[in-house]
Amino acid sequence: MKFCSNCAGPVSLTVPPGDHLPRYVCASCGTIHYENPRIIAGCVIEHQGKILLCKRAIEPRYGFWTTPAGFMENGESVQQAAAREAMEEALAHVRLGSMLSIVNVLRAHQVHITFRATLADPSFGIGPESLESRLYAEEEIPWPDIAFLSVEFALRRYLEDRRLGRELLHFRDIDWRDGKPVMTDGPSQ
Amino acid sequence: MKFCSNCAGPVSLTVPPGDHLPRYVCASCGTIHYENPRIIAGCVIEHQGKILLCKRAIEPRYGFWTTPAGFMENGESVQQAAAREAMEEALAHVRLGSMLSIVNVLRAHQVHITFRATLADPSFGIGPESLESRLYAEEEIPWPDIAFLSVEFALRRYLEDRRLGRELLHFRDIDWRDGKPVMTDGPSQ
Repeated sequence: MKFCSNCAGPVSLTVPPGDHLPRYVCASCGTIHYENPRIIAGCVIEHQGKILLCKRAIEPRYGFWTTPAGFMENGESVQQAAAREAMEEALAHVRLGSMLSIVNVLRAHQVHITFRATLADPSFGIGPESLESRLYAEEEIPWPDIAFLSVEFALRRYLEDRRLGRELLHFRDIDWRDGKPVMTDGPSQ
Repeated sequence: MKFCSNCAGPVSLTVPPGDHLPRYVCASCGTIHYENPRIIAGCVIEHQGKILLCKRAIEPRYGFWTTPAGFMENGESVQQAAAREAMEEALAHVRLGSMLSIVNVLRAHQVHITFRATLADPSFGIGPESLESRLYAEEEIPWPDIAFLSVEFALRRYLEDRRLGRELLHFRDIDWRDGKPVMTDGPSQ
């Protein structure tokens, strides 16, 4: 951020009075521009015992496989965002179930929220952000080609819970140090 | 938003190619400025059977009572944000427990995430954004003076679960139509 979106004046990083963190503050009109984490909403979709994955047609991680997920929009709920992403990426009309996982991706300033879901009707397809959509049996899942650590976490917890006949909510923090991920799990509930 | 934070050029609301929603797009440098919901993280703090509430010293809802909560910051987890707000608003060092509620506040473009918590040490106080901090027994809670609908929801679910000896996660959407709140609950888990 270089300029004020309110008056076009230059902004600089300073700690506003009464605050404790540096913010982009406009020297001309005084507007404080806060920046906050964004929510990525998605779902693990099961159909006839298999999991629906999409091959990404966009960066980052072009060509890798993911569960449908994307940025939550203003005016929608987290649940609506998760269902919308399933429609956009896999042309899938889903029925959302319980909340599966919440992953804090600290460096990216993101919170990844994933629900369990099933196909509300058996048809699905390939959205504009996908190269391919496919139902995978558990033993077929291409683990080395899963796009994101948060997706792998959600998928593994999903399958583990399914084997154990339970539906818990799982927590993980993902940080990066010296180019390597550092992962910390909270207690599942 | 009137000007581009990257180049100070004028922005206008248009649907970018491949998108489906209007965004603020810069006519000069082409930057697309996305706006997304923000997370409010907080906790219901119990100590010796009572609930810790703070009287707000800031708008909105100056003078009304709330559980500690506030905007999640970049670089922290939802859990860290909830604990930090307890420290800032009530000088309370808390031990977080399970996740209590997630409320989509649609018009405000906010997601309110609330945890259960206890005091890690019995001292607490009055932070700069509070006029007063107090432990309330269940029957003393000043319901008409609770600051926000999402806080009332979290508090009522907390107390109900406590009576029933369980710790569920509860969901609600809050929208506004004709000046009145419209509330829809999802299935607790």
